[in-house]
Amino acid sequence: MSDTPAQRETARAEAFSDGVFAIAITLLILDIKVPAEQALPAGTSLSDRWLLHALGRQWPGYVAYLMSFATILVMWVNHHRIFALLRKTDHAFLFWNGLLLMLISIVPFPTSLLATYFMTPAARVVAAVYAGHGVLIALAFQGVWQHLVRNEHLLMPGTKAEVAWLTAQYRFGPLMYLIAFGLAFLSAWASIGLCLAFAVFFSLQGFTQKG
Amino acid sequence: MSDTPAQRETARAEAFSDGVFAIAITLLILDIKVPAEQALPAGTSLSDRWLLHALGRQWPGYVAYLMSFATILVMWVNHHRIFALLRKTDHAFLFWNGLLLMLISIVPFPTSLLATYFMTPAARVVAAVYAGHGVLIALAFQGVWQHLVRNEHLLMPGTKAEVAWLTAQYRFGPLMYLIAFGLAFLSAWASIGLCLAFAVFFSLQGFTQKG
Amino acid sequence: MSDTPAQRETARAEAFSDGVFAIAITLLILDIKVPAEQALPAGTSLSDRWLLHALGRQWPGYVAYLMSFATILVMWVNHHRIFALLRKTDHAFLFWNGLLLMLISIVPFPTSLLATYFMTPAARVVAAVYAGHGVLIALAFQGVWQHLVRNEHLLMPGTKAEVAWLTAQYRFGPLMYLIAFGLAFLSAWASIGLCLAFAVFFSLQGFTQKG
Amino acid sequence: MSDTPAQRETARAEAFSDGVFAIAITLLILDIKVPAEQALPAGTSLSDRWLLHALGRQWPGYVAYLMSFATILVMWVNHHRIFALLRKTDHAFLFWNGLLLMLISIVPFPTSLLATYFMTPAARVVAAVYAGHGVLIALAFQGVWQHLVRNEHLLMPGTKAEVAWLTAQYRFGPLMYLIAFGLAFLSAWASIGLCLAFAVFFSLQGFTQKG
Repeated sequence: MSDTPAQRETARAEAFSDGVFAIAITLLILDIKVPAEQALPAGTSLSDRWLLHALGRQWPGYVAYLMSFATILVMWVNHHRIFALLRKTDHAFLFWNGLLLMLISIVPFPTSLLATYFMTPAARVVAAVYAGHGVLIALAFQGVWQHLVRNEHLLMPGTKAEVAWLTAQYRFGPLMYLIAFGLAFLSAWASIGLCLAFAVFFSLQGFTQKG
Repeated sequence: MSDTPAQRETARAEAFSDGVFAIAITLLILDIKVPAEQALPAGTSLSDRWLLHALGRQWPGYVAYLMSFATILVMWVNHHRIFALLRKTDHAFLFWNGLLLMLISIVPFPTSLLATYFMTPAARVVAAVYAGHGVLIALAFQGVWQHLVRNEHLLMPGTKAEVAWLTAQYRFGPLMYLIAFGLAFLSAWASIGLCLAFAVFFSLQGFTQKG
Repeated sequence: MSDTPAQRETARAEAFSDGVFAIAITLLILDIKVPAEQALPAGTSLSDRWLLHALGRQWPGYVAYLMSFATILVMWVNHHRIFALLRKTDHAFLFWNGLLLMLISIVPFPTSLLATYFMTPAARVVAAVYAGHGVLIALAFQGVWQHLVRNEHLLMPGTKAEVAWLTAQYRFGPLMYLIAFGLAFLSAWASIGLCLAFAVFFSLQGFTQKG
Repeated sequence: MSDTPAQRETARAEAFSDGVFAIAITLLILDIKVPAEQALPAGTSLSDRWLLHALGRQWPGYVAYLMSFATILVMWVNHHRIFALLRKTDHAFLFWNGLLLMLISIVPFPTSLLATYFMTPAARVVAAVYAGHGVLIALAFQGVWQHLVRNEHLLMPGTKAEVAWLTAQYRFGPLMYLIAFGLAFLSAWASIGLCLAFAVFFSLQGFTQKG
């Protein structure tokens, strides 16, 4: 049986979204820079020891990379779950989806900010930007999801139980990142530690769920 | 039923186009730079306040990003609509489509120019380049569309009404950006304000249309 | 009818190749740089005139961009034609195809070299590298094609006439770029002019062919 | 016959993975830099000879590029083979696959380190990082594969013989890169020479295998 036009449109929106997710997640590595030889302090010679030290000093960049990679991957898995329930799309859905894709493709920027300024006196600003961006992503995701919940004709028939279960699952995302955002004003470490905990938690969550 | 070769060729051209759209839209973020520590004025210490201020000063970059993201997304939606009507492609269509893809993939350049020079005495040049690039995109899009309208055998049967409606819709694109281009010589703010209004208008337009 | 495993493998190799083509063609824009404010000569103030002049001085970059974009697009169209004839793939085919993809994804490097050094006394080196890279691409393309011609079981049945026609078409590619490569030692302008002529010729060729 | 949801989920995970592979492999070229005019020693004039020399000095970058391109391509071919055997996915599989994709998308970083520092006194560090990253990739690949072997219901029926054969094939990957990692502490050349040998060996291996 050939696909219907509605299925084809949904498939194309899904493929485009996947492209943006795949590119954003792969671009993250561009922000991990090779230590510059020019950073070698005068009077020091280039050595194994210096390079190891220079690589070590970049640890906030590695943590930021891992955290953002996990976050985008988790968002992709959830996005994927939503599309699996979709019968057709409408303009408002495409608008919300576009907003979500924009926020996903922005992720390299707060990640890079974090890598550069986490170990400086400006740490709280970058923690607030990172966690605040997490709030925006969680809200856009809610926007996508709530639009579907309120417009059942966009969903496949017979998905009520799963929709209810996902609605419960997705409920706390914005609040969680809001707490991390608030914490940033007290302590950058606490705020980013919480964001990291979310990324780890959501990445591992799958193991306890039905396959 | 298996797809015919014509359908397969059309699908491949569509997938390639989607790839270019997805990459171009995701690369836009590379032009939003983390403020450089080196930009810290002598005698100032790195602080939350300095970083906030430095991030704030980059606002033309954020606006340019949003505007270009919206523009590429709207072009993708329209491109998608055209392909939904397509029965098969020919060489001239692929040529026009290639020209459109080239202009889409160039978007990060005028965007970056705008971000860098909008708040300088060279603002009019960058506004003219940005709006002028909008004219070129609108013309290439007309090229793609008019080629189809003039070669009805490339379109699905029974699409006359929709084709007429889209022809009316797409009529004003080049003129609109031409006005923004002309305005650039008087005022960069007016020109870019108009481009921004177009991006917002086209993004929201979908809500008033049939789903 | 479901696809056979052979069709599925071919489709996946095609999709992967398309991804590489789409990314390589879109990355080209990253080499067109926004003129740096730091390049402003001492004593000159930043103005519309200065920026226009600075943008104008970058013309070899624009030409190199257009030429490389057209070249990759033409290669994509030809790659696409080959895959349309393919019944199945084998390891040697995948090896040749991988080599071709590598050379395509390298294109941004000679393009960037050309943009940077064409107007300097080192022009002949960059012209030779650019044309020489064209020779390598044409040879890898021959490798892909000749492997298929020599292993007819990889091709769809009933494609003899088209295969013969394409073999004739593709015959001259390596020689053409070899001439441009040789010319580079005499004149960078002649060499790059010839490469540009090839790109324009192949781009427009489609119009005179059967759709 | 329409695809089942399980097939569709598998196909989407495969398409996403292919996107990441294609982007990572194409981004490698961004680390091959055009020699900077600023690197021209004082008193030397820009000439063909200087540029040739400057391009030649970058040879570790070219070797690193070729080696990493071949490595990612070989990983893609193997990844592809695994997916061809897959009946459905589960969460643990997606987790291991996500880990593998992360390590693949990190490849440009050790590649760039190698290109920058291989000819300096810090060569052993970059060789150890490069080979060590190879160990991690091989381990993640084992993780993906062993998960499938231990959960036969995820595999297509009738694939026992091929699974056993692939298990034997994949057995030595981690050990091979572990040896290269150990060698790095003695000699960067030996370590990287071995990594290069692996890349060449695996690339050519296909020719001796059943098509």
